[in-house]
Amino acid sequence: MDSALAQARALIRQIPDYPIPGISFQDLTPLLAHGPSFQAVISEFMPLAQACDVVAGVEARGFIFAAAIAYATGLGFVPIRKKGKLPFDTHEESYGLEYGSDVIAIHQDAIEIGSRVLLIDDVLATGGTICAGIRLISRSGGTVSAVGSVLEISSLESRKRIALEFPEVPVHSIFTV
Amino acid sequence: MDSALAQARALIRQIPDYPIPGISFQDLTPLLAHGPSFQAVISEFMPLAQACDVVAGVEARGFIFAAAIAYATGLGFVPIRKKGKLPFDTHEESYGLEYGSDVIAIHQDAIEIGSRVLLIDDVLATGGTICAGIRLISRSGGTVSAVGSVLEISSLESRKRIALEFPEVPVHSIFTV
Repeated sequence: MDSALAQARALIRQIPDYPIPGISFQDLTPLLAHGPSFQAVISEFMPLAQACDVVAGVEARGFIFAAAIAYATGLGFVPIRKKGKLPFDTHEESYGLEYGSDVIAIHQDAIEIGSRVLLIDDVLATGGTICAGIRLISRSGGTVSAVGSVLEISSLESRKRIALEFPEVPVHSIFTV
Repeated sequence: MDSALAQARALIRQIPDYPIPGISFQDLTPLLAHGPSFQAVISEFMPLAQACDVVAGVEARGFIFAAAIAYATGLGFVPIRKKGKLPFDTHEESYGLEYGSDVIAIHQDAIEIGSRVLLIDDVLATGGTICAGIRLISRSGGTVSAVGSVLEISSLESRKRIALEFPEVPVHSIFTV
């Protein structure tokens, strides 16, 4: 790992008992607040993005990384949001979280048919959100070329879960805990 | 307006009666999905950002633009989120919206004392969110050097409201409706 990336890694902090007791939350905000670390992380995603037509990000923290990747590569950005937050006609998918469950949505016209999509979220926990995101993109006529995350919590086995449902989709995480 | 920017403007669509009857929602997602338009919009913010130390964005759509601006200029990014969404100690401020009211928060350690902050949101409606954001940044020890938005809804008079509370803060909107 190069030094800029090592510095970025060191800026991720753990918040104990958030959002509920027993969960240690991985807080990326100190990394984001440090410009060189944010750039170093985005640079790591560039090779993935260059084989894609569009970058999708999951609300809300996934937007931060996905939008910067889209800008950096000249690709378009597509938001995947919580149900009820997108104003136009949507597809919806439900999923289980590390703590609770939720429904996410995508605009039905967001993805051009046949587009290769880089799907980004900040943290890979159980992989439930990402699997729902892949289903949404598939229903929209696109193909997820790769999943990218900044931090993968390996004990929650997102990689195994994604591989079970979508064995053809590679998963790239910059850091692992 | 140059042609890339004119194309970006043409991609903003109006969704009638969203989120409630009588409101016409300004939907920027078609602009975001078109890489050259997204880049053209971000480029317009670069001169503002170059006089700042950090870029703050308001959840969730403000994250998209603020993160890309931060990446493009090498600055750090600071998220301003809805109450309860940030894991560390926060400052909070309430505000009235075009439809309803809400509370936003910032990490107490997000801004270095004396930092010059570019504060970004996607759409300027009444200006209530932005005024709350300026108060949050001020309480954190920073100074908002400028407010930037992609689209200003001039009939809602955000500019007047911001000028009343913060006459020293310039407001830059790329498009106006």
